[in-house]
Amino acid sequence: MGADNQQERLDTKWISGFVDGEGCFHVGIHKISKMTLKWQVLPEFRIVQHKKNIKILEKIKYVFGFGIITKNHGDRYELRVRKLQDLNKIVEFFKNNSLQTTKKDDFKLFSQVINLMNKKEHLNKRGLRKIAEISYKMNRQIKPKYLKSSETIRPTYESMKI
Amino acid sequence: MGADNQQERLDTKWISGFVDGEGCFHVGIHKISKMTLKWQVLPEFRIVQHKKNIKILEKIKYVFGFGIITKNHGDRYELRVRKLQDLNKIVEFFKNNSLQTTKKDDFKLFSQVINLMNKKEHLNKRGLRKIAEISYKMNRQIKPKYLKSSETIRPTYESMKI
Repeated sequence: MGADNQQERLDTKWISGFVDGEGCFHVGIHKISKMTLKWQVLPEFRIVQHKKNIKILEKIKYVFGFGIITKNHGDRYELRVRKLQDLNKIVEFFKNNSLQTTKKDDFKLFSQVINLMNKKEHLNKRGLRKIAEISYKMNRQIKPKYLKSSETIRPTYESMKI
Repeated sequence: MGADNQQERLDTKWISGFVDGEGCFHVGIHKISKMTLKWQVLPEFRIVQHKKNIKILEKIKYVFGFGIITKNHGDRYELRVRKLQDLNKIVEFFKNNSLQTTKKDDFKLFSQVINLMNKKEHLNKRGLRKIAEISYKMNRQIKPKYLKSSETIRPTYESMKI
């Protein structure tokens, strides 16, 4: 993005308001047999827009300084952030530019997951269960497969202490 | 809203971002036989939210200093502004706190309608047709009943000059 567009740099408070309406904080927990614990934690921040508004995704990406813009579905595109180091910056951004709707609750839970991942807690059973329980409280509260799996359904002594 | 909430007064740029995602500018043209021209122009600004976010509608209303919060449909509530004098303030607000998505195009057309109404142009046939044509370009471009009505479908000499 050139110098001209820098002059139109989006206000960070505008981004916060836009994300309150259009953004999504999500934590996926996927079964992957090659991993030690067999489950992978995949936190993600995304904003989905109709292709007519792809420029706004580019402008937000420019302010963040990271993220990938990719096709979502049909006429929709998304700005997506998945790297842990970038998600830490997302957490920092929304601590400084506070969300105002109930999306703030999702954000708080999301931050807890990022915090646990910073401490590599997703790599042990106790931490993984904790993350699954937090992600269960987020969004539309669909029970993560991890918490429904026959392999993980019986709480271990470790997880009982959480 | 008390002093405590005043401290949490929303940032105007946040409101602009939120409205880019969640707001709606709309111009209805309704048939009302008792009126001189038989058609009433009803411009409206609204933000619809799930009831869990009704507080945010109250906070936005507080910053604006006007508007009505009322039930929309099911679990949804809306903050609605319909008075011409208040809609003029809405136009002023979004001139100072610029929208960034394609909603800005709707807003520009909406401002044109408000401007015409300030000049009482909606009270003559030529102005009414102009407003109908502008409103046709807005939102999802559903042809207003005014432009489809057998009473108004043949352009008058006056409207040909627009």
